[in-house]
Order: sequence, then C-alpha cells, then structure tokens
Amino acid sequence: MLRDFAKAAKPDKQEIKQRMDVELARLATNQMRVKESRVPVIVIFDGWGAAGKGSVLSKVIRDMDPRFFQVATMGGIPTKEQRRMPFHWRHFVQIPEEGQFKFFDMSWMDEVARGVFTGYLDQRAYDKRIDSINMIERQLVDNGYLVMKFFFQISKKEQRKRLDALLANENTRWRVNKQDLDENESYERYLEIYDRYLRDTNRSAAPWYIIDSKDRNWATLQVLEFLNTSIDIAIHNKGFSSPPRQNVFPLKKMPLLADIDLDKSITQEEYKKELKALRTRLRSLHNVVYRKKIPVIIAYEGWDAAGKGGNIKRVAAALDPRGYEVHPIASPEPHEKARHYLWRFWWRLPKSGHIAIFDRTWYGRVMVERIEGFCTENDWQRAYNEINEFENELIDSGAVIIKFWIQIDKQTQLDRFTERQNTPSKQWKITDEDWRNREKWDQYEAAVNEMLQKTSTTAAPWHVLESNDKRYARIRALQIIVDELERACGITEI
Amino acid sequence: MLRDFAKAAKPDKQEIKQRMDVELARLATNQMRVKESRVPVIVIFDGWGAAGKGSVLSKVIRDMDPRFFQVATMGGIPTKEQRRMPFHWRHFVQIPEEGQFKFFDMSWMDEVARGVFTGYLDQRAYDKRIDSINMIERQLVDNGYLVMKFFFQISKKEQRKRLDALLANENTRWRVNKQDLDENESYERYLEIYDRYLRDTNRSAAPWYIIDSKDRNWATLQVLEFLNTSIDIAIHNKGFSSPPRQNVFPLKKMPLLADIDLDKSITQEEYKKELKALRTRLRSLHNVVYRKKIPVIIAYEGWDAAGKGGNIKRVAAALDPRGYEVHPIASPEPHEKARHYLWRFWWRLPKSGHIAIFDRTWYGRVMVERIEGFCTENDWQRAYNEINEFENELIDSGAVIIKFWIQIDKQTQLDRFTERQNTPSKQWKITDEDWRNREKWDQYEAAVNEMLQKTSTTAAPWHVLESNDKRYARIRALQIIVDELERACGITEI
Repeated sequence: MLRDFAKAAKPDKQEIKQRMDVELARLATNQMRVKESRVPVIVIFDGWGAAGKGSVLSKVIRDMDPRFFQVATMGGIPTKEQRRMPFHWRHFVQIPEEGQFKFFDMSWMDEVARGVFTGYLDQRAYDKRIDSINMIERQLVDNGYLVMKFFFQISKKEQRKRLDALLANENTRWRVNKQDLDENESYERYLEIYDRYLRDTNRSAAPWYIIDSKDRNWATLQVLEFLNTSIDIAIHNKGFSSPPRQNVFPLKKMPLLADIDLDKSITQEEYKKELKALRTRLRSLHNVVYRKKIPVIIAYEGWDAAGKGGNIKRVAAALDPRGYEVHPIASPEPHEKARHYLWRFWWRLPKSGHIAIFDRTWYGRVMVERIEGFCTENDWQRAYNEINEFENELIDSGAVIIKFWIQIDKQTQLDRFTERQNTPSKQWKITDEDWRNREKWDQYEAAVNEMLQKTSTTAAPWHVLESNDKRYARIRALQIIVDELERACGITEI
Repeated sequence: MLRDFAKAAKPDKQEIKQRMDVELARLATNQMRVKESRVPVIVIFDGWGAAGKGSVLSKVIRDMDPRFFQVATMGGIPTKEQRRMPFHWRHFVQIPEEGQFKFFDMSWMDEVARGVFTGYLDQRAYDKRIDSINMIERQLVDNGYLVMKFFFQISKKEQRKRLDALLANENTRWRVNKQDLDENESYERYLEIYDRYLRDTNRSAAPWYIIDSKDRNWATLQVLEFLNTSIDIAIHNKGFSSPPRQNVFPLKKMPLLADIDLDKSITQEEYKKELKALRTRLRSLHNVVYRKKIPVIIAYEGWDAAGKGGNIKRVAAALDPRGYEVHPIASPEPHEKARHYLWRFWWRLPKSGHIAIFDRTWYGRVMVERIEGFCTENDWQRAYNEINEFENELIDSGAVIIKFWIQIDKQTQLDRFTERQNTPSKQWKITDEDWRNREKWDQYEAAVNEMLQKTSTTAAPWHVLESNDKRYARIRALQIIVDELERACGITEI
C-alpha cells in the first residue's frame, strides 16, 4: 500500500491554509455533534519517526474543547509493568467513552513492526498478532466506535533530513532516539514491514488512511478532511456503515468545466482531410488490436445535444463491424435495476480483441442517479471508488479504457434544442426530459466536476472534448483513440 | 483456519434429521421473506473434491421454490471464451437479482488455489487476486448483497475413501477428475493453500463458514443453520450488519442445568479434613504461580443465594493477600457503561503472577443484560464470540482462566431467601431485586444453558458446582483450582 501510494494532488499554500481553517471549524462543531450523538472516536497516528505526527496532532486539536478529548502516548517498548499484562491491555484501557475523542500517538502497530524487524516475531507469531489486532478493531467497531487510522508517510531522504536537523540542534537532539535512526538506516526493510502490516489490517470497518506528510499543513488538512467526513457518515448512519475509503489510484488533475475554452473549431476542409486520415489509421489499428487480443472500451458521456451520437458514428464508421459493438445505455431494465448497478456493464464488456463503445455509462451513478435521488448519498459517494476499482480490474486484465466527456455551453445547448424542436426530422431527438434536465444544469455541472476530479485515474483519465464545434470534437476523439490504441499496441510512430 | 478448525459437537442421527426438517421448513419461509424484503443472496459452496458439495446442495434446496433460486456451476478451468474476459466476469454476470438466491457450486477460490498450486500465480499475482476478490465481495455487500461462503472440509483419508468408491463404480467413475486425484495426492500442500486463502478472504462482511463434511446430513444441517440465521439478521437489520461469525474455538460439551445431579453432599468431618488439605496445597501453589509469573483469573457466576460469597471466602482465605484481588462486579458505573462492555474487565485484569477473583463477570452481557434488555439482541448474540475471543487473548498471554457456575435448585433458593428474610443479621443480603430475578428463573435458566454451551471452550471451560450443599461446592472449587494451577505450573504430583 505504501509503495504504490497515490498521493492526492497538493493544493497551493494559500488554499491549504484556507481549507484548514474551514476544517478546523468543522471539527470543533463535529466534536459537539459527536458528544451529542454519543459516538466514541478513536484516532490513531502511526507512521515514520519524525514524520510530524506530533505537530499535526497539535494543529488538529487547536479548536477542540479539551474537556472532551484526550491524547494517549503509546509506541515504544512497553514498560516492565505493561509487559505483565496481555498485549492489548495498555491500549484497551485507553479507549474513550461515548461522545469523546481519544488520539493515540502511535498504536499497536509499533510494537509489532519492531518485533518483525528484530526477528522477535516469526511468521506464526506475527499472524497471531494480526488476527488479534483485527479482532480488537472489529470488536470496537461492532460496539459502536469510530476507529480512524492514519499512517504518516515520508521518504527516506526526507526522514534523514529531518533527523539531521533535529540532531544539529542541542534543544531538539533528545527527540531523536536510536529507533528513529535504525528506521532510517533500514528504511527499505521497514517500508516492507509497514506495507505488509497496513495490508493485513486494512479492513472496511477500520481502513487505513495514508497521509502524504512532507508538508505539515497539507498533512494536517488531509487528516482533518478524512476525519470530518467519517464523523459525518458515522453520525448520519448511527455507526451502521464503514468510513469512506481513501482513493488509492493516482489521479490526473482535471480543469473545471467552466475553465474549458469552447471556442476551438476546425474548418470544413481541415475536417475532411483529418477525418479521412484518422479513419484510415484507425481501420488498420483495429486489426492490430484484434491480433493482439486487446479489449477496448470507449465511454461517452456529455450534455444532452452535445453531439455524442454523431461523434460515435464517425468512430464506428472506421471500424470493422465484426469487431465492435455500440451499447446505448438507457434507464436500467427491472432485472438490471434489481442487481448491483455495475452488473449491466459487466454483461456488456468486450471480449479480448473487441471494441465496446458505450453511449452513456456506469457514470450515471454519480450524475443522474445522484441528482434525481435514485440512490442514497452513501451509494453515490461510495461509487467513485467502486468505479475506479471496476475500471482498474478491466485495465489489469489488459483492457484499454478511453473516456470522453463531450462539453458544450448552455447557450449552444439551447440553440440545438430549439433547432431540434423546429426541424420535423429531428423532433424525435428532443423530449420533455431534456428540458427538465436543462433546468438542473448547475447541479449537473457540479456533479460532473466532482466526477472528473475523482475518477480521472492516470490509467483511465477523462478526455474533455470541446464540442461547440462538433466537427472539432470528432477529430479530437478520433485522434485520442488512435493515440491510445497505438500506445496499447506498442506502436510509437504512424 | 482449517488446521485448527473447531468442529462443532455432532448431534446423534435422530436429532440431526429432526433439526434438518425444521431448518428446511425455515429456509422455505425465509425464501419468501427474502423475496419480500428484496435482499439478494449469494451462497458459495467451496471445498475439497468429493466433500459432498453437490449432495448437500440438493438437500438444501429441497423445499425451496425453484422460481426464485438458481445454481451456477463454476470451478474448474475457465473456457476459452471466458478467458477472453476479466477474471471476475464469469462470476459477476451470475449475481442474483433482489429477492433471489444464487448458489455457486465452487467460486473464484478454485482458480486461485490451482494457480498457486501450479505456480502460475506467484506471491505478487496472488496478492493482487486476493485484493480483487476482497474488493468484489465488499462491493457486493456494500450494495446490499448477503454473501455466505461455505468451505466443505474432509480429511485426506476420507477424501481418498470417497474417490476410491467413486472410481470403483462404473457409473460414477466419470465424476472423478485428475484435479481431484492431484488434490488428494498433494493434500498437505492444498491444505496450506486453502488455509491461507480462507485467512486472506475472511472479512467481517463476508466471513467463511467451515463445514465438517464427513457426515452429509450433519453438513447439510450446519449449512442450513448458518444460512437461516444470517438471513434472519440480514432481513432484521436491512443489510446493515455482518452475518454472525462461526465459532472457531473448540468447545466442551456441557450438560443442561436440569440434568445436573444436585444431591451431592459431604459430611462435616470430610469437609474439615479436605478444606485443610486443599488450603495448604493452594497456599504453596500460590507461591509457584507468583514465581512462574502466571496470571490467574477465577470467575464466579451463579444463582442468587447459591453461595458465591462463601465459596470465594474459602478460596481467598488460602491465598497471600499481597497476591490476589477480589472484584465484586455490580451494575456498571456511568463511565464504564459509556465504553465497550469488556473495558471494565480489561481494567481489572491481574498482572502476571497475580490472582484476580471476579464475583460476577463479563458474562452479565449474555445473562442480565440480555434478559433485562440492557443491550440489543445483536449485541448479546455477538457477545458469545467476543467473550471467547477476549478469554483467548488472555490465555494466549499465559493466563489461566477458571470459570465457576454455582448451581442450586429453585426450592433451595426459596429456602435460603426465606431464611435470609427471617434472620435479622442476614436481611441485608436479600433485596426486592432478588425476588424479581427469581420470577424470571426460566428465562435465566435458558440463557445460562446457552452461555454454558457457547462459551465452554476447552481452553477455559465452565465448571458447574453443585451447591445445594454449599460445603460440597467449596471443596469442589478448591479442588478444581488446585488441579488447574498445578497443571499450569507443570506440577503433575502433589
């Protein structure tokens, strides 16, 4: 988990400060809500020595009422007295009462990690500890506790730098102990141990949150956001559901829809020329895809009347009809609605060497289903991660996923709607529902922005196609498809 | 999980048949309740070849309405067509719709286990599969599915016997394939692979149930009981809680309270003699316990006026007061009630070399708290396992746990209550609450019986002390304590 840890995009200093203030105020309110709803909250800070656990902690508690939280300092070697008790004793006696927070500065991880490192715990003893840790955490959650586990991650170099700085100053030298130095010296080995531990104890009921800790304010902000969101969910569901999962997929930074320049266009002449060239290229690529047995998924989403249909038509025209299928996705049928919302898409996946084009997709969950209330807030909040996991499964099995968001502005949509209404041959294309959806443009825009931010994984990023000029968008789509397929087929030059 | 698998005590043939009929009828009703409440149910049958998955399945579905369940036959090597799709495709397309059952005859385990066996999956690839399997199962549960996973366990010898029988008959020979034979030949290696797989995929949301499959009716009954109980919970909580965990601790078969012979007694003379001898022995053992740093927990439960106080007094009298503590357990204080119900007992655990005597215990959860409604049914149902886990932690850390249930009959209680009421010096001992509890004698008896059955682990079994004659019970208690401590100290002869 640590090795391939997907760092969230770090905002700039100013934004971090602003958001931190918002979250600190939110936590102060949440502390009172926690008190009222009687949820006990355990917050665990684990991670590398000198990763900043202490300084983040002092920031997190800044606006909290000290009567209703406590800090327990664990970690290190248990005292002689503690060693006369069962392993979990010194932790368990520290659990908070209902409505209170307890911050654990280090937890039961520390003793286990040292034990593995020194060889004191062999595989069997380690497995036993893991079972016992998962058992204790499960029992806490089953009995109504919110358990939040943060791992503070820094690189070997960063750790070294911090340790050196501490050592260089007479007043801080005492804060560096032998264990910290060992950890840095054997960083790779510890990374392996921590990574395994996080994997082995990462359960839905008490998942790990890995905190990118190079910048302390940024680390604080990450902790605060996870903490506040989880408290909201715990209070809302009276402890009956799991905290949100941290995103584990590297994400591409996406622009807001409002910032997209829609003036891009192409002349009729250029369009014809490009279209012809790209079609020829795509046709021949389709053969390579087939021979190399690569499954390809092309997903279209976009505003009503943005030009999805015409765009798909131009792509399909370049393909061998025996090797592709277009799936128009409407509201789910009763037998589809009665199953996991991704089921109907699993059914429509392309086999290896084939291309599946989806006209609307599984992203309906976080757009129309969210806005029309067809699923609960829990459902669509959870869906970002579920969808990333779903696409990751497909990519792991060798698939190429190309996702398009076809973007137009509100005026262009109105023009096209009006034209459709006034043109008898196009009237079938416009329905009352289209007009109703248009009224919710702002809600949809917010949902689409959130979707683009949260599901644009580097392995399957969104491509926003500027489609005020439909022809421009078509050429862009073809170009992206050709580029992606060439990369997948290992072709570097046309 | 398979190696140290705790087989449940097998009832006799007659009882199995009777209970099976009850459970089959219950499942038929549950099928209709599932349909109404729209829960989708996935039932997975995994396990050894020839373990009887097929024949159990045909029994389980005997009384079910075939319109609302289906069987999916998985396992084996995926077809060429299936291999053109992502790993989970062939499973996921099979998921049932709301209100329906789908039985999976083998699941995604099979392909993974073969992959590890043949070396096709290395550690990295295996870890990836496990992540992906846990992800899919979690997504199903998060989206409202009840996922029940059964592993059918038989020994190498039993499997060999069954395979030979199948091979010997011309009509059944075809049912044995090379994979079954390989599995038997490399039983130890497969046991290791299955064991690891079960461990790695045993999550609260979709736990494994290991089925002792030597007897087919017994196997069927076990499956039916787990299935029905989990359906009850899923419908009751609308999918918001985990299925019950299978007991993993070996249990001692306990008699029903009604079958205990309470006529046992001891003469005054014998009593004096025995008491003196046992006291001397216990006093010297206490020193050994201290030197060997063994923590000892002696837990007393029993009817009001059964003689707990006098019994504890005789034990304590033999101990060095610097080395033991008696904890009288009353209703929890507010700060105790506000935490996990085991917390106040963690606080009172003895350190190594010390003896803690509990006058009433954590078993209040499944007696008074259950009967007086101080916790939910979910809470006390879950508590049997939580308590077994708790005691197991203590035993793992080296502790000896001795649990007494002090038993008297209803008439004896009445006699003692009346005597207390009529004796001024004893009146403080009898309260209105005692009389109120007495009125619930039958409810308590049922709860105590269930507690004795479910928490009498072989590592910390209950000892029922016949206490109509209090002196008899005292001598028995001392004798058991002496025996247990001698065993723990490695002393075989007095």
